[in-house]
Amino acid sequence: MSKEITSRNEDYSQWYNDLVLKGGLADYSAVRGCMVIKPYGYALWENMRDVLDKMFKDTGHVNAYFPLFIPKSLFEAEEKNAEGFAKECAIVTHYRLKTDTENKGKLIVDPEAKLEEELIVRPTSEAIIWNTYKDWIQSYRDLPLLINQWANVVRWEMRTRLFLRTAEFLWQEGHTAHATKQEAMEETEKMLNVYADFVENYMAVPVIKGIKSANERFAGADETYCIEAMMQDGKALQAGTSHFLGQNFAKAFNVQFMNKENKLEYVWATSWGVSTRLIGALIMAHSDDNGLVLPPKIAPLQVVIVPIYKGEESKKTVDEKALEIVGNLKSKGIRVKYDNSDNSRPGWKFAEYELKGVPVRMALGLRDIENNVVEIARRDTKEKISVSIDKSVETVESLLIEIQNNIFEKALKFRADNTYTTDSYEEFKQLLDKGGFILAHWDGTPETEEAIKEDTKATIRCIPLDGKIEPGICIYSGKPSSQRVIFARAY
Amino acid sequence: MSKEITSRNEDYSQWYNDLVLKGGLADYSAVRGCMVIKPYGYALWENMRDVLDKMFKDTGHVNAYFPLFIPKSLFEAEEKNAEGFAKECAIVTHYRLKTDTENKGKLIVDPEAKLEEELIVRPTSEAIIWNTYKDWIQSYRDLPLLINQWANVVRWEMRTRLFLRTAEFLWQEGHTAHATKQEAMEETEKMLNVYADFVENYMAVPVIKGIKSANERFAGADETYCIEAMMQDGKALQAGTSHFLGQNFAKAFNVQFMNKENKLEYVWATSWGVSTRLIGALIMAHSDDNGLVLPPKIAPLQVVIVPIYKGEESKKTVDEKALEIVGNLKSKGIRVKYDNSDNSRPGWKFAEYELKGVPVRMALGLRDIENNVVEIARRDTKEKISVSIDKSVETVESLLIEIQNNIFEKALKFRADNTYTTDSYEEFKQLLDKGGFILAHWDGTPETEEAIKEDTKATIRCIPLDGKIEPGICIYSGKPSSQRVIFARAY
Repeated sequence: MSKEITSRNEDYSQWYNDLVLKGGLADYSAVRGCMVIKPYGYALWENMRDVLDKMFKDTGHVNAYFPLFIPKSLFEAEEKNAEGFAKECAIVTHYRLKTDTENKGKLIVDPEAKLEEELIVRPTSEAIIWNTYKDWIQSYRDLPLLINQWANVVRWEMRTRLFLRTAEFLWQEGHTAHATKQEAMEETEKMLNVYADFVENYMAVPVIKGIKSANERFAGADETYCIEAMMQDGKALQAGTSHFLGQNFAKAFNVQFMNKENKLEYVWATSWGVSTRLIGALIMAHSDDNGLVLPPKIAPLQVVIVPIYKGEESKKTVDEKALEIVGNLKSKGIRVKYDNSDNSRPGWKFAEYELKGVPVRMALGLRDIENNVVEIARRDTKEKISVSIDKSVETVESLLIEIQNNIFEKALKFRADNTYTTDSYEEFKQLLDKGGFILAHWDGTPETEEAIKEDTKATIRCIPLDGKIEPGICIYSGKPSSQRVIFARAY
Repeated sequence: MSKEITSRNEDYSQWYNDLVLKGGLADYSAVRGCMVIKPYGYALWENMRDVLDKMFKDTGHVNAYFPLFIPKSLFEAEEKNAEGFAKECAIVTHYRLKTDTENKGKLIVDPEAKLEEELIVRPTSEAIIWNTYKDWIQSYRDLPLLINQWANVVRWEMRTRLFLRTAEFLWQEGHTAHATKQEAMEETEKMLNVYADFVENYMAVPVIKGIKSANERFAGADETYCIEAMMQDGKALQAGTSHFLGQNFAKAFNVQFMNKENKLEYVWATSWGVSTRLIGALIMAHSDDNGLVLPPKIAPLQVVIVPIYKGEESKKTVDEKALEIVGNLKSKGIRVKYDNSDNSRPGWKFAEYELKGVPVRMALGLRDIENNVVEIARRDTKEKISVSIDKSVETVESLLIEIQNNIFEKALKFRADNTYTTDSYEEFKQLLDKGGFILAHWDGTPETEEAIKEDTKATIRCIPLDGKIEPGICIYSGKPSSQRVIFARAY
């Protein structure tokens, strides 16, 4: 029997967990809130990472690596940043264990090995990086500094969800330094566009680009840009953020440079990041009640071939033809697996690869070979076609493109169908219960946003960058507003 | 002026630090014992990682990711392993900071946010991984499990050196599970061979494959295989290890599987790793008093082109021709940089790229273009030749291969010249002071090894795999010995 997946209607949250666990993407671990990323999930992350890494390099960035730990005195230097992360950070206080003399075979923390200064496991690296940049930046000739880091970070969240919110997660964090405010602003927007490009064109998830309200801004930023995606339950998921940090960190760490006029100035900063959380977004944007649906461009496997045979002789014939097709697909750069394992029957394999979201499945039997045809099934629509074996490679090639486009279009239509505009607070609340994005007027104050959140659990996801200027009155306070913002409940 | 490098003769240790710091590979950080890997050093690591990663995948391994933290109760489960790492590990005891009411703007560890169970920052991941494998392995069908992880680890070393020994370092750790002892043994040796292949054929560092004595064995292993390299001061550096773990972790974490005969058996294990320490080996094996010497196969930059011009008009002509050469080199997959920055003069650039170890430097001036020639200098021998521009690409291509081979041969000759055989303990001590590897007989006891170490600071680097069986008497105790082993002082 294939593995059972809870349906979305029955229990959306359980459906999600089923996909992560039974799809082989991740597993729970012995450490509270930390997950194990399993090989299939990690292969997906590697593909995402490789595409992003190339995009960063193509836009002039280089990679580096900074320490995992941040001494407390550096951590607290930028006050808002420190305040934002202080409540959820892992703290190293000791550097040695010793034998527990009262319990054989057990160890205890050695009280004599207490650190003079506690170390914070990085929840984000602005502090340690800007403390380093101080030594690297003297003159305008040292700028811009365009550095990215792939790393693990830890935020001691109280309520965790696989991929979506884990105590430790993998991410990249870009940290750039610039001579002018304008250049830093341009960098902030450039990286937001890189993220939007990646999420839409590789992950096939449509996003809305926007600016966060003050309440939702990154701790220590002057402005946070974000991309927001809609999940199949109508909730929003923040898929990436790019922060304009002004001179906040330069001032906290005293990073000044000699400008062309020989005057000392504080450096301007940005930071931007996406994380393994994106995998959560990917799952919830496309998958269905039969399992994962992965976009071909980043799927660990793009094609699986399942042989159908009875007896050794027929197996040999099918193997031979299948391996020929495998070779032809590989020569086109297609990631393909031929599963002729004896452990399970074709039907079980079909269900398994459907669960794993492999975009294209081919089934090949003895009679097919006699007729020179092969059955090709697409994961997204579950349509099957029978094509001539000679044309199978080109069929697969165009199908992979079509699937990539189709799941993006489907997600885009879903978002359009679940995006509403309203000027009535009563309707606003009803719409929220249906789920989706709501475009509504807001008076621009944190107090109103807070009150709406208190009342409805919805937050302002962003002030959309392409939103039109359209005077109106705030849905909650009745005060004037210049533009609609996007409200939603969010992950 | 170019940056000053201390010569090897003057102060070998300072020479090494100068290369790391002034060559732009790494920097000290605000965290005791932790370094910052700078972009140039990280690009080198990325190239090394990518080659290794492909080698692992080509031998059937997949990547995954396990938690950074290990709960103390799991950490102590395999007693020898725990004992080996207990004295040097970073321990997380709290998960929250709070405002220090007595010092404005400062934070203190919140005593109310103490963890019920302390978390060890992984010094190596056997414990957390084998605790996970318990859930993944039920039957022989689940085996072998061939998983690798790229990760950061922390060992609270008292004396640290950039790359060679840092509190936090980057590495990969393979953790495999097998149904039989023989299969695990074969895996252990296979991965040792992968490491030797990589270090010799990509890093151009010759290594000796061998087995560690019990004293030098990995904590928790039944047998540790290693590759040992010789540095230019004659000291040894362990460049990689592959451990046969027997059933030690399977027993500690109760990982059993149903074999084909339907009987429960404990699983057999291996683990193997190389780290950013390899960069230290690379530096000390090849570099000279002018700076780094990097092997072309993994050098971040393989070729740099420096233009020589006076005035804008001549710059334009040189730029044009240089960019044409850059294009031709890139089309051959060569990593090339054209440095036409105005910040510094050609002589300064020459010294800078020599310091950074770029294998090939091309210099191109107006007169060269008129004569259709370009000057090509190789970093390893410092020889310069003038070749026709039309032949420059093929010249560079063959030069990169030649440099790769030459620096390997040079290191191989150096090792041969500094490897001695002796049967006299007095001569043994004199040779050690000269520096190098010494092949000598040893009685096989930990006591003798310890006594020699105490007396001379030399350890047994390995029992060489290709050493011939040759009866003799122990250089220290006079007791019988069946084979010479390699002694050396080591990093």
